[in-house]
Amino acid sequence: MMAAPGGKTTMIDTKTAGDLAFDRLEALAGFTEEPGRLTRLYLTPAHKAAALQVLAWMREAGMKTRIDAVGNVVGRYEGVEPGLPALLIGSHIDTVRNAGKYDGNLGVVAAISAVAALHRRFERLPFAVEVLAFGDEEGVRFPVTLNGSRAVAGTFDPAALDVRDAEGVTLREALEQFGCDPAGIPDAARGAGDVLGYVEVHIEQGPVLEDEDLPVGIVTAINGASRFGIEVTGVAGHAGTVPMHLRRDALAAAAEMVLAVEREAKDTSGIVATVGMMEALPGAVNVIASGAKLSLDLRSSSDELRREAVARLKRRFDGIAERRSVGVQVTPRYDEPAATCAPWLVDQMAAAVERSGIRPLRLPSGAGHDGLAMIALCPIAMLFVRCAGGVSHNPAEAITAQDADAAIRVLTDFLRHLTPPQ
Amino acid sequence: MMAAPGGKTTMIDTKTAGDLAFDRLEALAGFTEEPGRLTRLYLTPAHKAAALQVLAWMREAGMKTRIDAVGNVVGRYEGVEPGLPALLIGSHIDTVRNAGKYDGNLGVVAAISAVAALHRRFERLPFAVEVLAFGDEEGVRFPVTLNGSRAVAGTFDPAALDVRDAEGVTLREALEQFGCDPAGIPDAARGAGDVLGYVEVHIEQGPVLEDEDLPVGIVTAINGASRFGIEVTGVAGHAGTVPMHLRRDALAAAAEMVLAVEREAKDTSGIVATVGMMEALPGAVNVIASGAKLSLDLRSSSDELRREAVARLKRRFDGIAERRSVGVQVTPRYDEPAATCAPWLVDQMAAAVERSGIRPLRLPSGAGHDGLAMIALCPIAMLFVRCAGGVSHNPAEAITAQDADAAIRVLTDFLRHLTPPQ
Repeated sequence: MMAAPGGKTTMIDTKTAGDLAFDRLEALAGFTEEPGRLTRLYLTPAHKAAALQVLAWMREAGMKTRIDAVGNVVGRYEGVEPGLPALLIGSHIDTVRNAGKYDGNLGVVAAISAVAALHRRFERLPFAVEVLAFGDEEGVRFPVTLNGSRAVAGTFDPAALDVRDAEGVTLREALEQFGCDPAGIPDAARGAGDVLGYVEVHIEQGPVLEDEDLPVGIVTAINGASRFGIEVTGVAGHAGTVPMHLRRDALAAAAEMVLAVEREAKDTSGIVATVGMMEALPGAVNVIASGAKLSLDLRSSSDELRREAVARLKRRFDGIAERRSVGVQVTPRYDEPAATCAPWLVDQMAAAVERSGIRPLRLPSGAGHDGLAMIALCPIAMLFVRCAGGVSHNPAEAITAQDADAAIRVLTDFLRHLTPPQ
Repeated sequence: MMAAPGGKTTMIDTKTAGDLAFDRLEALAGFTEEPGRLTRLYLTPAHKAAALQVLAWMREAGMKTRIDAVGNVVGRYEGVEPGLPALLIGSHIDTVRNAGKYDGNLGVVAAISAVAALHRRFERLPFAVEVLAFGDEEGVRFPVTLNGSRAVAGTFDPAALDVRDAEGVTLREALEQFGCDPAGIPDAARGAGDVLGYVEVHIEQGPVLEDEDLPVGIVTAINGASRFGIEVTGVAGHAGTVPMHLRRDALAAAAEMVLAVEREAKDTSGIVATVGMMEALPGAVNVIASGAKLSLDLRSSSDELRREAVARLKRRFDGIAERRSVGVQVTPRYDEPAATCAPWLVDQMAAAVERSGIRPLRLPSGAGHDGLAMIALCPIAMLFVRCAGGVSHNPAEAITAQDADAAIRVLTDFLRHLTPPQ
């Protein structure tokens, strides 16, 4: 049986794998660039220190370790014979500024724990397991991101070596300072034949599991995302002198669009849509708005659903604008297709969840992950862990040791039962 | 017959009173603090120069002139015998920054033209007529306003003498530099027995007359206004990870409030309501808004209607907030009661409009005017003049000489027929 979420274990002598993982997550949180808060950007000394600690834990768990040319920590646990194709498991150890302790780090610690569980019992699987600790998932330091997983997937863009951080340091220089040889990055790429898939444990960063009262859930896809800037053009006027029927109020039109976005997402299963930015021009208490600017972020695990919803919304915006005699311009800002998790991995992960006595809830990932890059190389899957209030990228980010323990148990069981498709 | 709006007179030798008024408005526009655009703030040298020009025109029209202790230009045209109670007519000659030529100035020039028309024919009325050119209607220079009309109405607050402009100059010092004696301000106040009423010609600053295809209209009241700051408090969340049904989106709630304001004003004859400011917090494309700030400006010629509408809107806001599980706080920022025009003046102005062959449309004033202060002294009335697109406080402010002519003709005819109530 699961421990109750949020409860404390009452056992005094026996630490669970979850407790051990918590100790390690605390230890990792000590590797920071800023005293008093956790900030560990890609290729900084704090990242190097964390990487070396992870490397030590991998060794302790029976893995052969290395740091590759892009700064990924790699630990390999051979299967029943050396050189078998590997299942890659892991996550990232870089963080945002003023971060929580669990985003990324949990997946690395959990992966090491799972291998350690095999190692403790001298278990060898019919495939190798490799734990990866990527270093560039958050994309905070440089204006490029996912370079760790892109290098492994073979999609690293050499032009990225010349981008600079805020201090003017190029990615190439930062890699050299970290101790990497940028010239070796192409060799960090894995061949599709050497890899079975990539599986990541990660905090949900959303409230679904908490709402469903479940410690873990199986990810179906990393959602694709469309982002747009929307500009509404009306006619300014004196708030006291223009009668309602003669107004062409850009803000009122924009308000209708905000509600149209919400309605569209509520009515369409499988999408979420958000207007997070809104501005009225000129923005004075006594002036009817001549303009309004808003943002639209629309995500779905189905690219078709997402594109259909965007098309419907554009038509709705046009209808609102026409009815109100205002102009509207919708400018695409970002478009990332969904990364669908491999059904065979999803099904086997769901089976492992069920074997742990947990209802196997499937849910999409609204946030991006290294799987977005890894899918170019191999099938991907993810296991989400409940986090308090869905909060992440914030020191208030919180999970329980019991939930971490459940995730490690599920991941270990998943590895033990994993049968690649014939 | 009216000249067609926007049309040019084809007469070559005969200038209409409207043409002459236009020449004078052009001349006044030359008195500015900033070359190339019209800016004439209270008690500046540009104001002084304009005041002296106005004074000269008043003299030319047969008036006895003076500049009072608060900087008002006053011209008196006696009635059939000296010392009769006076009808006050006029407007203001201060402007906003980068102003149009007609706001305020038109009413002063039109009033002088009307008196000049009487003077040309040696007509004396059963009351005196005084033309007033106030200097502090726009309230741009000092953090107080309507001091010219307040002084005449006897409601000038002596504490205002100590307020400072952006350069640190007090109102007292500015008055002295202008040539006024602040100690004489109490004597600028008129006795109710000496005054029949205050009548002002002013551009509409709204689109109603243009929409109704009318050169002038009769004002029923200067609308009262309520202003509020509204803060909505929701819960921030990741735009990709929080399902629609778990959101407490402050911006979506605020959008509903914007539309509720619009709906309330559209459904309630006699009010206008505007949300001109809107901000989402934290205001990021991928973050569900934790907060939203918006403004509300609500005006009506009926204080009762206005208060009822505000109360209904507050209930609607509460309902929206409750249904969406967000918080809402409505903070009053401003409350100015309506100034109702005297029915006997309104009726006689409407009769004069009708005698000019113009359909007598009655409409409220959404903007504030010196009448707001004058009503403490005497009955008030206003005649609005059509302005292009309802635009004001802008160099694009425009009227036609034909419409100015209509206004002068109506005002003159109104004076000739004016019968105070028994």
